[in-house]
Amino acid sequence: MDNSKIGHHISEQFNKELEDIRNNVLTMGGLVEQQIELAVQAFTSGDIELAEEVIKQDNQVDALETAIDLECTQILALRQPTAFDLRLLLTVIKIIHEIERVGDKAERVAEMAIQLAGVESKFPHHELEHMAELVKGMLHDALDAFARMTIEDVSEITQRDDNVDREYENILRQLITRMMEDPRNITRTLDVLWTVRALERIGDHACYICEHLIYMIKGEDVRHLSQSELESKLKA
Amino acid sequence: MDNSKIGHHISEQFNKELEDIRNNVLTMGGLVEQQIELAVQAFTSGDIELAEEVIKQDNQVDALETAIDLECTQILALRQPTAFDLRLLLTVIKIIHEIERVGDKAERVAEMAIQLAGVESKFPHHELEHMAELVKGMLHDALDAFARMTIEDVSEITQRDDNVDREYENILRQLITRMMEDPRNITRTLDVLWTVRALERIGDHACYICEHLIYMIKGEDVRHLSQSELESKLKA
Repeated sequence: MDNSKIGHHISEQFNKELEDIRNNVLTMGGLVEQQIELAVQAFTSGDIELAEEVIKQDNQVDALETAIDLECTQILALRQPTAFDLRLLLTVIKIIHEIERVGDKAERVAEMAIQLAGVESKFPHHELEHMAELVKGMLHDALDAFARMTIEDVSEITQRDDNVDREYENILRQLITRMMEDPRNITRTLDVLWTVRALERIGDHACYICEHLIYMIKGEDVRHLSQSELESKLKA
Repeated sequence: MDNSKIGHHISEQFNKELEDIRNNVLTMGGLVEQQIELAVQAFTSGDIELAEEVIKQDNQVDALETAIDLECTQILALRQPTAFDLRLLLTVIKIIHEIERVGDKAERVAEMAIQLAGVESKFPHHELEHMAELVKGMLHDALDAFARMTIEDVSEITQRDDNVDREYENILRQLITRMMEDPRNITRTLDVLWTVRALERIGDHACYICEHLIYMIKGEDVRHLSQSELESKLKA
């Protein structure tokens, strides 16, 4: 973490608290990244046990969100921070909420893995894995930017969401063709569609994390800007 | 608003600020309720202009979120509130985020209205309207509970989400049957499916608002409890 940003507090204890929160956010993020990875693995391999593990892990993610949220609230009450420290704590509360929703999407993928286990595989696994890699990368880099407290790379991260959307549209088209060719398998194909859609949403949440970070660092709310507006804002 | 809760501040000005935030949240909520109503109307009537209006309105919703968020942050910095006031402001930040996401869902319905305008109507409009009524009611009552600062009725509101899910499953089954019977119309039927799914998600966001309210009033995080756990928590 950039110590010039959080290392300026008179109170050693306050620094320790912020550092602690930062570590907890990264732990939570790491857990959810792993959840995505395992959920997709369970999906492509039809491993029900693994999928169940992912679903169980969601409790841990939820518990971490609750704990970090409480930590932030307590610090707000006790330390009454202002300026950057206030924005940092408010941003953490928002970021952990995004991470928690990503965990829900991973859980959704795991549920679909169970639903589809044993079904003869005719799904675009390769594309699905590729899409999972894309969104996992976005999430990872967004959390990395948070860890380093920098927004240098965030417009590059949000830019990548276009690739995710393209990949999503591409898989969607394949799935629609499949449904037309084999209408008896529509229900199953829809389950694949839910999976792909859950992955696509993870990309969105990674973008939201980037927007929250910009607010934290620059104090400006960029949540409702387009990609090009965002880029010129960051250059300004 | 229950004046016993927010009318106890020595500073008249602080009371005014909180009252102002509350009114802005309710304005934002009212706008989004209207968005849902108009989006569904545009969808069932195929009114493209109306749908475009709903999409444009989303800017207003976004601007309100940004403004209220800023208001809360400024009060946190200047007044350094603790206990209930702190929780109130943190809850407002969370609630407006849920309302904003509901606005996105209404926008999604409006987009699908444009996509499907002019297409011969064979969709379950009656069921869709019913579902929209259900989720609009949930959102309205959740915001009403916020306005009155009471959690008396919230478990009844979250309970209603079961009806929404049942209605969703019911429409989903009908749509799947339709896709099987007429595979050439799968793309259009999927557009209806996205619409129904967007409505279903509005119910979830209404539930999240209720959970945030419980945190505000009781100081307890109930975000990851089941309906029955929630009910016994509220009775305790």
